[in-house]
This record gives sequence, structure tokens and C-alpha cells, in this order.
Amino acid sequence: MAEKLVENITAMEEDFAKWYTDIVKKAELIDYSSVKGCMIIKPAGYALWENIQRELDRRFKETGVENVYMPLFIPESLLQKEKDHVEGFAPEVAWVTQGGLEPLTEKLCVRPTSETLFCDLYKNDVHSYRDLPKNYNQWCSVVRWEKTTRPFLRSREFLWQEGHTIHATYDEAEERTVMMLNVYADFCKDFLAIPTIRGRKTDKEKFAGAEETYTIEAMMHDGKALQSGTSHNFGDGFAKAFGIEYTDKDNKLHHPFQTSWGVSTRIIGAIIMVHGDSEGLVLPPKVAPTQIVIIPIQQKKEGVLEAAGKLKDALKDFRVKVDDSDRSPGYKFSEQEMRGFPARIEIGPRDIENGECVVVRRDTRQKYTVKLDEISDFMKKLLEEIHNDMYERAKKHLQESMYDAATYDEFKKIMNEKPGFVRAMWCGNVECEDRIKADTTATSRCIPFEDRDEISKTCICCGKPAKHLVYWGKAY
Amino acid sequence: MAEKLVENITAMEEDFAKWYTDIVKKAELIDYSSVKGCMIIKPAGYALWENIQRELDRRFKETGVENVYMPLFIPESLLQKEKDHVEGFAPEVAWVTQGGLEPLTEKLCVRPTSETLFCDLYKNDVHSYRDLPKNYNQWCSVVRWEKTTRPFLRSREFLWQEGHTIHATYDEAEERTVMMLNVYADFCKDFLAIPTIRGRKTDKEKFAGAEETYTIEAMMHDGKALQSGTSHNFGDGFAKAFGIEYTDKDNKLHHPFQTSWGVSTRIIGAIIMVHGDSEGLVLPPKVAPTQIVIIPIQQKKEGVLEAAGKLKDALKDFRVKVDDSDRSPGYKFSEQEMRGFPARIEIGPRDIENGECVVVRRDTRQKYTVKLDEISDFMKKLLEEIHNDMYERAKKHLQESMYDAATYDEFKKIMNEKPGFVRAMWCGNVECEDRIKADTTATSRCIPFEDRDEISKTCICCGKPAKHLVYWGKAY
Repeated sequence: MAEKLVENITAMEEDFAKWYTDIVKKAELIDYSSVKGCMIIKPAGYALWENIQRELDRRFKETGVENVYMPLFIPESLLQKEKDHVEGFAPEVAWVTQGGLEPLTEKLCVRPTSETLFCDLYKNDVHSYRDLPKNYNQWCSVVRWEKTTRPFLRSREFLWQEGHTIHATYDEAEERTVMMLNVYADFCKDFLAIPTIRGRKTDKEKFAGAEETYTIEAMMHDGKALQSGTSHNFGDGFAKAFGIEYTDKDNKLHHPFQTSWGVSTRIIGAIIMVHGDSEGLVLPPKVAPTQIVIIPIQQKKEGVLEAAGKLKDALKDFRVKVDDSDRSPGYKFSEQEMRGFPARIEIGPRDIENGECVVVRRDTRQKYTVKLDEISDFMKKLLEEIHNDMYERAKKHLQESMYDAATYDEFKKIMNEKPGFVRAMWCGNVECEDRIKADTTATSRCIPFEDRDEISKTCICCGKPAKHLVYWGKAY
Repeated sequence: MAEKLVENITAMEEDFAKWYTDIVKKAELIDYSSVKGCMIIKPAGYALWENIQRELDRRFKETGVENVYMPLFIPESLLQKEKDHVEGFAPEVAWVTQGGLEPLTEKLCVRPTSETLFCDLYKNDVHSYRDLPKNYNQWCSVVRWEKTTRPFLRSREFLWQEGHTIHATYDEAEERTVMMLNVYADFCKDFLAIPTIRGRKTDKEKFAGAEETYTIEAMMHDGKALQSGTSHNFGDGFAKAFGIEYTDKDNKLHHPFQTSWGVSTRIIGAIIMVHGDSEGLVLPPKVAPTQIVIIPIQQKKEGVLEAAGKLKDALKDFRVKVDDSDRSPGYKFSEQEMRGFPARIEIGPRDIENGECVVVRRDTRQKYTVKLDEISDFMKKLLEEIHNDMYERAKKHLQESMYDAATYDEFKKIMNEKPGFVRAMWCGNVECEDRIKADTTATSRCIPFEDRDEISKTCICCGKPAKHLVYWGKAY
């Protein structure tokens, strides 16, 4: 009985992809729907997204961001205004061709992203330097007609936020672009206990229409990269394509500068694959919808449920649930492990007699005997400790799975044999990126902000003079 | 200068429809987009929706509701499973026929509402009485291909929440249906200062596929009705159409019972049309994104901006903004009136000398001189008073615009001459509803819960024996 919930989870070491889909299904985060490639986000999954949304939204607003809502549809002619952008997105959008009983005169795409719609708005609203900057964001769903899909990681519809800002100068746009990347990196560290690498994308990996794309890259348990948030500086390219102009203090017309930045439900995939283990989810305490589950032992005995209720009252600063269902304690323990609640508290007749309870943390399974009247202080410290330990373990994994390569043979050998990222020099040409991808399936993840070492003088691939240190990896 | 912002607002008495569109545009709540019939919700409008969402979501969760997210698309075959439902919605949906570069094998509609998707989920997830009830809700956008559109009131895409619950018994479903209608009515009263009439829809006005539809109806300034929230009991009709069955404690298979209920961005239209006046928006304090605006007078004089800042600090329990832009005070006053901030505080050199400030409420324009060290207590009481007064004024308007009719001539005369609702008896036949609509453009708003008086023995229209007292009105 105790094992029932977990007996069907594939071992992580055996088949990581299968382990992942087992977890999302059995922890009831998502379900498949009748619409191929679209997912149903169930209560346990959506509660994670609500916590992510609340915290990110708070951090955005602290930097002066305002929320808006733009239409779901983009007319074909509007999508086509910026050349690189339409080339990047047109092949993967869904098209509405009929409204009500009549065919449309112009087909509409379901937004894959909303740069073009924001440009259309800014063209109407931005005329003077007094109208700048505008720091807008929206929470919405977008659609990209992907061929192969995986829960949270790649689906035809997903939830996200997309920030879109417009500024008088390039420097101000650049500052906003980097600021939002840092908001994402700090959020991942402080709230999700996920270390990320911040860096710049190569031209090949840039967003369609961007001048610069910055990224945070996280490393999953299997050594693969997950691009977890991106921030784009568009320069004045979109403004020129859409004819957005403003009169500056000098009384002359100028094109303004734009940015966009986004984080999606994909980040839930990162939580699962960075922290999860063979028994199920392991949720970082700050994002966990239930932080503590109280499991009464011999709950039919007098006083047990009352004591569990009192414990809950004492823990009013936390998100706590009492599991008083008629399942066995063993079943409840394995359910807590599967669902990844950061800690459980066991309380039975003997504990009550001793004025104690037993606390078990999810991440390490360590047990503590705690006096009932000290439980709130204890849990406050414990949840902080769990967060920090989870972050440190993830960071250690990242550091230990990072290799240097100075020759192409070495590079290919590591990529072939060891999961993780490889640090190697690159000449700056897309041909080398293409060849590396063909040879190893690895892609350039980023040119890191914080790591400027020189590993060799020449490009790992072609041998020409090196321009950049790049982190390479296989990616989701 | 002072009049600049408001000079172009059409007078309410002159042309109510034009007054309405002037307000939504000039208070910067929405903007039109390149997509016909779809609106852009701008920061001032979206902040209203965020406050509505936060408060409703809290009230839902108190009743045990959990949030989920369902796909944006519904395959044609799924939409067609429930006969009445597809008849009601198919003529007004948008169809996706192409995904990426290829035509779809089955066309997908953009959800106009999600009953069919929830049934598809419940069919997979509900097997035993242990799986019941499920009380799910989602916040999302839906699309209905309307021919004529108006900001907030009727648009091709709008934001809403749709609750979908499933229960073991009819009675439990009925209890949930009424419970959510009451949540809506209480929310309108407590949070938006809008009185509503709760009642049951006639068969003609019911939701497509529902056994019973309950509604809250609000009365706008012009005497027209706005259906502001609905709650539907589906009985087991959808469960039968979708083959949803569960094993009860008696070990036999049964069809479960379902409900759905929704409130949309339409409710923002009600806020405007119930409370607004000829100077602009009048926002109820609880939903107002800015509750108090502080306007410094002679702000360049020493100490004025500091005093405004101190006032803001003293009012930390409220949503406060200091308007220190370089506009004139007169301009700022008229902007506060246009945007509907519930109160403004004026503070200048003489006020500071006297240790005072001037408070002006938006709804009545009444002025108060208040000691600076009493401002927080004063504003707390004043905002409560504004809320209560706004509610009472709206209620008085509703009561004074409600007429009784005992004969059809009387009915037509009132409908023709007086804005408002008419109470009149009805036989229960749709033919009479159709004739009344043809003769007067009025529709049956509801069979009220709380008003069981008998005005006459016979139907106002056909003279046959009367079955119900009905509230009739012209509606948005």
C-alpha cells in the first residue's frame, strides 16, 4: 500500500525522459487533452504557476512595469511588417480563417508572441519624449505549432508573461534588457533555488528580430540545458519597420528603442528536472503550494486529530495541509514524497504524550524530533535551510558538470561521454555552430557574462582565431 | 487649461452611448486595435481587472475552488457532443484551419467557453464517488465572433473566469450554482458598490445546454440592464452527452451533475455606467487602483513636495499617488475627476502653515479641511463612507426606476417613456417573450428570487393565467 503511488515511476538513471513524464502525470501537474500538443494544467501544476506569477509580477512592478492585455489575434499583414520576425514565426503559427459562419477577408494568426501588436499600439501612443518610456507587460497564453511536444517544455499552447518596453535611447533599452534578465536570475535563485548562467546568445540563437538576446541557462539533472528566460534588445529595428517616431526635446523626430522579455510555464519543467528525485517531485519551499503536510498517526485515537489541528494553527505563517483522509500513514508518506511537499510532520498518541512531533524533510529525508511549542520557529529555520541546501546541491551539480575543451577531439569526446556543459572557444562564425550541432547535437548556450577566461587561442571547431568563450550543451 | 481633459466628453443626458465610449477612451481604459472587435486593455483598465480578479479569486478559494488551465482550442467533434450547446455557440466561433504550413485534418474552434473541455477532462478523472466533487475554475480569454462590438460590453475576445464543477447529486450541484451566484452578488455589493437583482432566467434566455441559469442583473444610469454574472446548473445533461459516469457507494454507475459560472471584463462596463458622471469615471474605493491622489499646490515653494511626501507616508494603508508633474493644479483636478480616483488631497504653503490639508471626494465633490496628523483615520472613514454612499445612490436609482404594469398598454407605455425595469406577470410561454421583444425591444431579465408579489392574475401579454412575476428591461 505504502508503495502504491511510486511503484510505477521509471528510475531517473534508467530513462530520464520517461522519469520526467511519469512525474508530471503522477504528481498530477498536467494531463493530456483531446487537442494534440496542448496540455491541461491541473490544480497542483497551476498552483505552482500562480506562485511564480505572483512573485514575478511583484518584482516586475517594483521596477515600474504596468500590466496590459493585447488581442489574441494578429492580422497577417501586421505580422509581416518586420522581416526577420515573420520569417522566424510564420512557419509555426496557427491561422484563423473563419469567423462565425463566414470566411475572413484577412487571415489572423493566433499570437506566437506580441511584438507586432505592441508596435501597433506604440505607433498610436508614442509621439513625444513625454510619452517615454512605456514599461508594459502581459500575462497570457501563446501558440506555436510545434511538431514534437513535451509537458511544460514544449507545447503548442503555453502560458507566459511577455514584457514589452519602449525607450528614448539605446542605452536605456539596453539597461532595461539587462535589468529584466537579472530579475529572472535573482528570481530563479531566491524563489526556485535554481542557479542559472547569464549570458548573451550568438546570432544564430537570437530571437527573430532582436539585436541582442540575453538568456539564463539552467542545468537539468541529466546535464542538459534548459533556456529558462530570455530578454531581447530590439534596437530601433521594430520602430523603423512600424514607423514609430517621437519628437525629442530637440524638436526633431527620432525612432525609439524597444525590448521584450519573457518567462513561461517551461520554468516548471526546470523545477522538476533540477530538484526531482526517484521518489517524485521535490519542491523548493517558496514556490510549493503546500509547504508542510501534517500526517496524524493512529488518527482514530482520542486527541490525535485535535493535536494535528492545533499544530496547523501554530503554523499559520506557512501553507499547511492536514491529511486526515482514511489512507494509511505509509500511503500518505509516499504521497508527500511524490507531490514534493518540502516537509511533513507526523504526530501520534506517543508524540502527543511527549509534547513532541516528528518532522521529515523531503529533500534529504532527514528526521527531527521537535517540541510542539517550538514548531513554528523550527519550521521557519528548516524551510530556509531546505531552500539553501537545494540551491547549493544544484550549484554543485552545475559546477561538477562543466568541462573545458581545448581541441575538437576532446570536445566531441566529452560531449559524447559526459552529461553537462563544455566551455570552449569559438571564432564567431555560424558555420562552426552548425558543424558542432551536426557532429554532437550540442548548441551554443551562451557567451557568459561572468566568465571571460581564455581556454585556447583558436576556435574549437575551425582553428581560426577565437573571438568568444562559449558554453556549449545539449538542450531541451 | 483646467477643462482641457473633459471638454470633449459628450454629456450623459445628450447621448449616453457616446458618453460611455468617450469615458473608456479618455480615461485610457481601452484602445481599439488592428483586429476588428478586439480591444487593447490599457494599464488603467487592466489594473481594475487585476483588483477584480484578486478579490473574486480569494472569495472563490474560500469556497474550496481550485484553479486550472485548459486548452485554448476545441476540436469540432468535441464541441458537437452536446446538441443545445453546439447550436448556441457554433454560429459565433472563430475557426483555426491551418497549423504551421499545413491544413489541419480537423478544424479547431477558439474556445467561446470551455464546458466541452472540462467534460473531456472529467470523463478521464471521475470514476468513483471519491473523485467528487471537483470545483475547478480558470481565468482566461474567450472568443465569440460578435457582429457589433462595444468596449468591455461586447467584444470578440474578452477576459473572464469560468468555474466548472462536478457533483454526485443534483442537489449538491444546485447548491453550488446558487452559492456562486451569491458570491457574485456579494462581490458586486461589497467591492463594486453595485446593487444587483438575483433571479432565474426564462428558458429562452438560458445558457445553451443549461437546465437552469441564474443571473445577477444591474441597472445602468440610463435604465438599461446589464447581465453582470451568471451561474448555470447543467443537471446531468453534459455528463450523459459525454459519457461521464462514476461508481457510487452503492457500487452502481451514475451520471454526475455539473455547473458552470462566470464573470467577465463586462463588469468594468457596469462600474462605468452605474457610477460615472459627466466629468468622467467615478471608481468605488475598493476596486480603484489609485484611491487617493495628492496634488501639491505651488509645488515649487519650499517644503511643499516634502509635505506631500510625508502625507503619502502617513497614508501607507491606501493606494496613493503624488502628482508632482509640471501640469497646473487645475489640470490635475480635472484629471483626477476624469480618471475617477475616489479622493484627492490638496496641500499648499498655507495648508502646511496651518497643519492642514484639503480633501475633495470624487463622487459628491464635497470638500473637507483635515488636520495633517488625523489624515489616515479620516481617509479610512471617508473611503468607507464613499463606498456606502455610492451603493445607496445606485440602489435608490434602481428602486426609483422600477415600475409595475398590470395591462399590456401600460407595459408598452412605460417601456416607451421611462428608462428602467418593469415588473409584470407572465404565462411562461416563449411566444409572449418574443412578442414583447418585438413590440418594445425589452427582454425578460429574470424571475426574481426575492420578489414574489402578484401584480395581476394574467399574463401581461396574452391574458392567459400568469405563472411568474418577471422583471423586464432593455439590456446591453
